[in-house]
Amino acid sequence: MKKIYLGLLGYGNVGKATAKLLKQRRSLLKKRAGCDLVLKKICDKNDNPYEILRDPNIDIVIELIGGIHPAKEYISEAIDKGKFVVTANKALLAEEGKYLFNKAKEKGKSIYFEASVGAGIPIIKSLKEGLSADRFNGIFGILNGTSNFILSQMSYLGIEFKSALRQTQKSGFAERDVNLDVEGIDSAHKLLLLVYLCFGKFFNLKDVFVEGITEILALDIVYARELGFTIKLLAVAKREGADLELRVHPALLPSPHPLANVDGINNAIYVSSDLAGDLLFYGPGAGRNAAASAVISDLISAALNIQAGLFRKGVCVVEDTAVKRLRHIKETESRYYIRFLAEDKHGVLANISGILAKYKISIASVTQKQRKRADVVPIVMILHKAKEKDLRIALEKIAGLPVIHEKPLAIRIEEP
Amino acid sequence: MKKIYLGLLGYGNVGKATAKLLKQRRSLLKKRAGCDLVLKKICDKNDNPYEILRDPNIDIVIELIGGIHPAKEYISEAIDKGKFVVTANKALLAEEGKYLFNKAKEKGKSIYFEASVGAGIPIIKSLKEGLSADRFNGIFGILNGTSNFILSQMSYLGIEFKSALRQTQKSGFAERDVNLDVEGIDSAHKLLLLVYLCFGKFFNLKDVFVEGITEILALDIVYARELGFTIKLLAVAKREGADLELRVHPALLPSPHPLANVDGINNAIYVSSDLAGDLLFYGPGAGRNAAASAVISDLISAALNIQAGLFRKGVCVVEDTAVKRLRHIKETESRYYIRFLAEDKHGVLANISGILAKYKISIASVTQKQRKRADVVPIVMILHKAKEKDLRIALEKIAGLPVIHEKPLAIRIEEP
Repeated sequence: MKKIYLGLLGYGNVGKATAKLLKQRRSLLKKRAGCDLVLKKICDKNDNPYEILRDPNIDIVIELIGGIHPAKEYISEAIDKGKFVVTANKALLAEEGKYLFNKAKEKGKSIYFEASVGAGIPIIKSLKEGLSADRFNGIFGILNGTSNFILSQMSYLGIEFKSALRQTQKSGFAERDVNLDVEGIDSAHKLLLLVYLCFGKFFNLKDVFVEGITEILALDIVYARELGFTIKLLAVAKREGADLELRVHPALLPSPHPLANVDGINNAIYVSSDLAGDLLFYGPGAGRNAAASAVISDLISAALNIQAGLFRKGVCVVEDTAVKRLRHIKETESRYYIRFLAEDKHGVLANISGILAKYKISIASVTQKQRKRADVVPIVMILHKAKEKDLRIALEKIAGLPVIHEKPLAIRIEEP
Repeated sequence: MKKIYLGLLGYGNVGKATAKLLKQRRSLLKKRAGCDLVLKKICDKNDNPYEILRDPNIDIVIELIGGIHPAKEYISEAIDKGKFVVTANKALLAEEGKYLFNKAKEKGKSIYFEASVGAGIPIIKSLKEGLSADRFNGIFGILNGTSNFILSQMSYLGIEFKSALRQTQKSGFAERDVNLDVEGIDSAHKLLLLVYLCFGKFFNLKDVFVEGITEILALDIVYARELGFTIKLLAVAKREGADLELRVHPALLPSPHPLANVDGINNAIYVSSDLAGDLLFYGPGAGRNAAASAVISDLISAALNIQAGLFRKGVCVVEDTAVKRLRHIKETESRYYIRFLAEDKHGVLANISGILAKYKISIASVTQKQRKRADVVPIVMILHKAKEKDLRIALEKIAGLPVIHEKPLAIRIEEP
């Protein structure tokens, strides 16, 4: 039986799980892959990566270091040396994917990256191969397990962001720089990879409007729920005619929507495609074994291609030429949930609604509840469809009113 | 650019959509597949299929005739002639898959069948390739769009099965023999294919316990909802130790469960795998374009392998040797929803609960509502976990009571 030799760069949680599973499941994987996947070398922080990158017998390099450097240089070198690459590195691919994929193409090799989005959910393969006949209208994803866990904790326990964050960190679901999670950067990286698969183009992080979950209060979650919505950190790529909107921000989803019911560390990707229809892919978005599942399935795909002897091309990612431009967030329209913390004085509501009216923004509903022992009261409004540009100006004016405490919060209502 | 020639057997809805899309999207598909997919011949009912099967230039045969014969003979001949096969025929593969897959393996060819389960949801590719590192604990599927549409209609409109069926037929979602749908046979066929992929073994239709949705009343849906459940026709393959349970039957799912919210013609497959975790794949389970999406993605997969020149093996389906036997339905245990239509006389409840107690079945809750202008009242109970064997005997005794009208209904409560 043919042996395929693997080299592993990075020996953190996912690396360890991958190494362990390759050993424990060797016989099952042999049968499924029709070859023996042999992990020849592991390179941790203090080891010399070139022992893997320059070993002519190693067929596939697994990159699980994370971050841009030196992962980029290692992957480049691996491709130059004629190796296939399997990686979970969304930040690197989001920022340097164009360069790396082109390089791999030139060399007749492939980079596999199933583990980079949605852990064990086979979303990369599904978009690239399963939906290879389709054109795409939109992607709506809950792509960051940590943020989703925090929002779920805030919802179930009625606690504020900071306590929920602490709990999440205690649970071990937020090992890395948690700012990347709660500020939406990690979701944006993943969105860029999905957009590449669906629309055939690499955009940059700066092309994505990104807003995190740090300003959401426990009361926003409660009010939203009473109004029939659930708050999620949503990554959106939405085609509107020839425009494409790219954004990551908290969103109110109608509570019965399948995305609204994705709790805890789960991820979900809702894909609107023109033939297969609206599809949802759901599952745990974190966990060492879940990520290792994706890494190993990539190894098997690569191994099958290596075994075929010739270079077998995969499905080509094709640019969707119907997308002509990116639509700036200020040009977008949406229904909104807005929340003010205001002094409990008469005339406040008249002031706020007066300003909204001035900018032709109409109110669908208002909720103002008396809070015990509080000198400020939350005022919550659902707005009819409004232009983001107008809303921002109006909110700034409202924020300037002396009766308004703290920055007003606006959350888009999405109904994918 | 290399041309790959296709022959299409069967020119119904899906066949027509496939042919049309191959033409309309030729240039997109060329780019994605790296070759030109040319539909050389179409064979409708009155044409000679051997013009396709015996054409040495045709590389891939698309079988969209449905049913066992003559589809089986045609696919056999296609494989004998060295062709790849793409089919949507779940009934054929469920009944003759073992024979056909073995035959294809011997000839070094593949049979692709993404369109056979869940229309455009890429569940076949996901189970086979995306989860190729995983072992499976269970599959819970809403696999029949027609039945699900009927149950949704009953739920939204409060109508009975027969009216909902008529409406569904009017909507065009039930073209074929609708008995296969509402009696659970179609779901069982699809379940057998998923079980083959996950557990590596072809079971037979007779190995699956099958119960349809025809005995569900509108009031069952209402009562279930009040109790926090939604009724779905569920296909279940569940590992319990060394046993495997295979069953298709209506089930009460907790209303917040992702499967409970799958409405209309949508399908969903909930997969419990040991590394990737619990995953859900959701989307339209019917529709000509959705099925054509799956057919064409299979054509692209086949074309990529044909282009590679050598025979490229796919992921091998491997038997899960931990599964030692099938568990008969009578050996299973479950919580149950049971409903009786009884005369509104005193002592009825005592009679029923007495019989249940005799078989050591304990009641979790009882609902008995006064119905206007009715001589019979529905009595609904939720039972604690009970043995199916015991329950069946008890229900038979209860059905024999003179105060009980019509056959009692028992529905399993599932919490995947």
